[in-house]
Amino acid sequence: MFLPGGSRRSRTMTVIILFTPLVRPVPNLNPLVSSLSFPPIPIVQKAARAYDGRHGPLIDLAQAVPGYPPHTDLLAWLSETAGNPALLGYGDIEGEAVLLGAYSQWQSEIYGASLGPDRVHITAGCNQAFIGAAIAVARPGDSIVLIEPYYFNHDTSLSMLGIHRKSVRADADNGFIPSIGAIEDVIDQGVRAVALVTPNNPTGAIYSPEDLDALYDLCVRHDLFLIIDETYRDFLDADRQPHNLFRKPDWEDRLVSLYSFSKSFCIPGHRLGALTAGYRMIEAVAKIMDNLQICAPRPAQHALARAITDLASWRAETVREIEHRRKAMVAAFDGLETWRLAAIGAYFAYVEHPFEGRTAEDVAAKLARERGVSCLPGSFFGSDEDRFLRFAFANADAERIAHLRERLV
Amino acid sequence: MFLPGGSRRSRTMTVIILFTPLVRPVPNLNPLVSSLSFPPIPIVQKAARAYDGRHGPLIDLAQAVPGYPPHTDLLAWLSETAGNPALLGYGDIEGEAVLLGAYSQWQSEIYGASLGPDRVHITAGCNQAFIGAAIAVARPGDSIVLIEPYYFNHDTSLSMLGIHRKSVRADADNGFIPSIGAIEDVIDQGVRAVALVTPNNPTGAIYSPEDLDALYDLCVRHDLFLIIDETYRDFLDADRQPHNLFRKPDWEDRLVSLYSFSKSFCIPGHRLGALTAGYRMIEAVAKIMDNLQICAPRPAQHALARAITDLASWRAETVREIEHRRKAMVAAFDGLETWRLAAIGAYFAYVEHPFEGRTAEDVAAKLARERGVSCLPGSFFGSDEDRFLRFAFANADAERIAHLRERLV
Repeated sequence: MFLPGGSRRSRTMTVIILFTPLVRPVPNLNPLVSSLSFPPIPIVQKAARAYDGRHGPLIDLAQAVPGYPPHTDLLAWLSETAGNPALLGYGDIEGEAVLLGAYSQWQSEIYGASLGPDRVHITAGCNQAFIGAAIAVARPGDSIVLIEPYYFNHDTSLSMLGIHRKSVRADADNGFIPSIGAIEDVIDQGVRAVALVTPNNPTGAIYSPEDLDALYDLCVRHDLFLIIDETYRDFLDADRQPHNLFRKPDWEDRLVSLYSFSKSFCIPGHRLGALTAGYRMIEAVAKIMDNLQICAPRPAQHALARAITDLASWRAETVREIEHRRKAMVAAFDGLETWRLAAIGAYFAYVEHPFEGRTAEDVAAKLARERGVSCLPGSFFGSDEDRFLRFAFANADAERIAHLRERLV
Repeated sequence: MFLPGGSRRSRTMTVIILFTPLVRPVPNLNPLVSSLSFPPIPIVQKAARAYDGRHGPLIDLAQAVPGYPPHTDLLAWLSETAGNPALLGYGDIEGEAVLLGAYSQWQSEIYGASLGPDRVHITAGCNQAFIGAAIAVARPGDSIVLIEPYYFNHDTSLSMLGIHRKSVRADADNGFIPSIGAIEDVIDQGVRAVALVTPNNPTGAIYSPEDLDALYDLCVRHDLFLIIDETYRDFLDADRQPHNLFRKPDWEDRLVSLYSFSKSFCIPGHRLGALTAGYRMIEAVAKIMDNLQICAPRPAQHALARAITDLASWRAETVREIEHRRKAMVAAFDGLETWRLAAIGAYFAYVEHPFEGRTAEDVAAKLARERGVSCLPGSFFGSDEDRFLRFAFANADAERIAHLRERLV
């Protein structure tokens, strides 16, 4: 026998539990985005903040930023153009004519090829240029080949767009240049392009003109686009052309070259990059960019146009400075038994650490916290990179790099 | 009988034709991009350039740009921050702390709600904010509801990402506000969000707080996100809160509000906008933005932070000026028998033209070339809009708008 009141209460409670959900359903985010890892740079910066300074100042070789200021004239031009009322409206989607002209002229000299202003599209940095190229060539469900270790944002950009990544591992024993055969093995009907970074991020490896010719031929054979990210191009030996691809008679059909003004002119905060391609691709990228942001920020484009022509000798100096830092980096590792420079190039060194069995993320965090050396774990750049750390040696001057040795041993 | 020479030549030619294709295959671009229409603004600008000035200067009401300069103090701050060496590196993905603080404080006042800086993400303009929101909620193959006539870049942005558009027509007879029932009719399992613009582009229609409450409830019922683009918000009556959505206890679960600094501060060329949402969404958008461009341009963010706090009275003046232009626009159409103001709002008027059977694109081109009046054809904003033209009346002062009447009759 039950008390009537108690019986009624418990019936009421049952009704509530069954018919009124305690928490309203919340719509789900796009799983392609939810499943992305967090942007890696802020994670590493956090570990570096935990260093107590016991070995001297932090040696920060984590993010790829030039460790010297821009030319003071460029600062003046940036200031002048930012307050110019004529540059406050919307601009041409493809970029300001003055920058398209100066950049295409400069590129024509670098590559020994005739590259007109209508073969260039200005973007808000090179990440955006990559996204523009990726969307232009591949729709969701298509694939793009990345060379592993890859620049992490190339991987996450494809993921969030629903474009599949086909990975080809570049072997340390081959100087981190992948074999054509290995790339050919992953090409199937869904592949639309091969994308790579040269000089490479993270390894520093530099693809030779012959390597790139062979890759181009592969793309011709399989009817693919070739996307090359040349963000670190200006830090190569200026007497040597980076590649011959712009001199191929049919380059406009399949080549896309990406560039960043951030490293060469030391102005990442102003967000400018460029994409060079055939007119058909430029037209497609303009449609994409109109949706993404209408146009890249305008005033800094005018300052940069002037910097390209007027600051050539300063740029040459910075290249010598980076070369100086590269040599300091090689010296710091010379004769070290346990740490090994697996590759070193225009901006980065890819270093094999001695702690077998430990994750690269662990080693990098410990190095930052306990030794005051900030770098990126190889595991940010691929699934089989736990033996490696990336050092962006361009960030620090030779004197500071010289202290690296004592921190590592 | 054949001449041996001739015979050999013709055999050689046959071999060439059979085994060497005259044209190498060229890889195809992403059909989602190839099939996009060209960005509409440049098309209209071209027609306007063909006007010979016979009726006086061009009345340019095509692109939504403020037809007055920014405050001179803002120009000075833009100039100052652009040359500041401390702002040249990469910044926080979500935006500069100083702007997140100033903007969230200002928003809290506008909406009578407590909106902290960690509920805001700075973007390079409002188009980019929309793309960020769209990618955050929908993956390729999912759908987002747009209200037709829609802002054309919302449509093309979804197309290029492989996200389907579900269209709901807003009827002229209902002041271009769609009925809840009509939206409910198109919702199926694939729909992830409803997106709309208020005050509207292109019609100018202003959704009332009650309209938005009903839409919010609809989204709760169907477990959807609600994305509202409030680019033209600041040109509403400042004494009235635009809506109550930020005061709903569960707004963070589903609401995304988009904003542009371009119109209110007259600096489209610097490319800055903002997205306000719950922290879960902000975190997702930060992942997307890191891929899209690492961070929005930094220096102008610092100038804007100051403009938000210091230029409040100038902004109030611009709102009065726009109201003045709106009244001039109403007067210009008052009593016109053949042209009809179908709707007018904070920045735009949506006008019914008298040429039945003619396409809106034809009428707009003729109006630009022959009468020196530049506007956008309704057909840019939807499939059933050929009777309409969009006039961005904020572009021209009242005196110029007064000449509109004589050009139209």
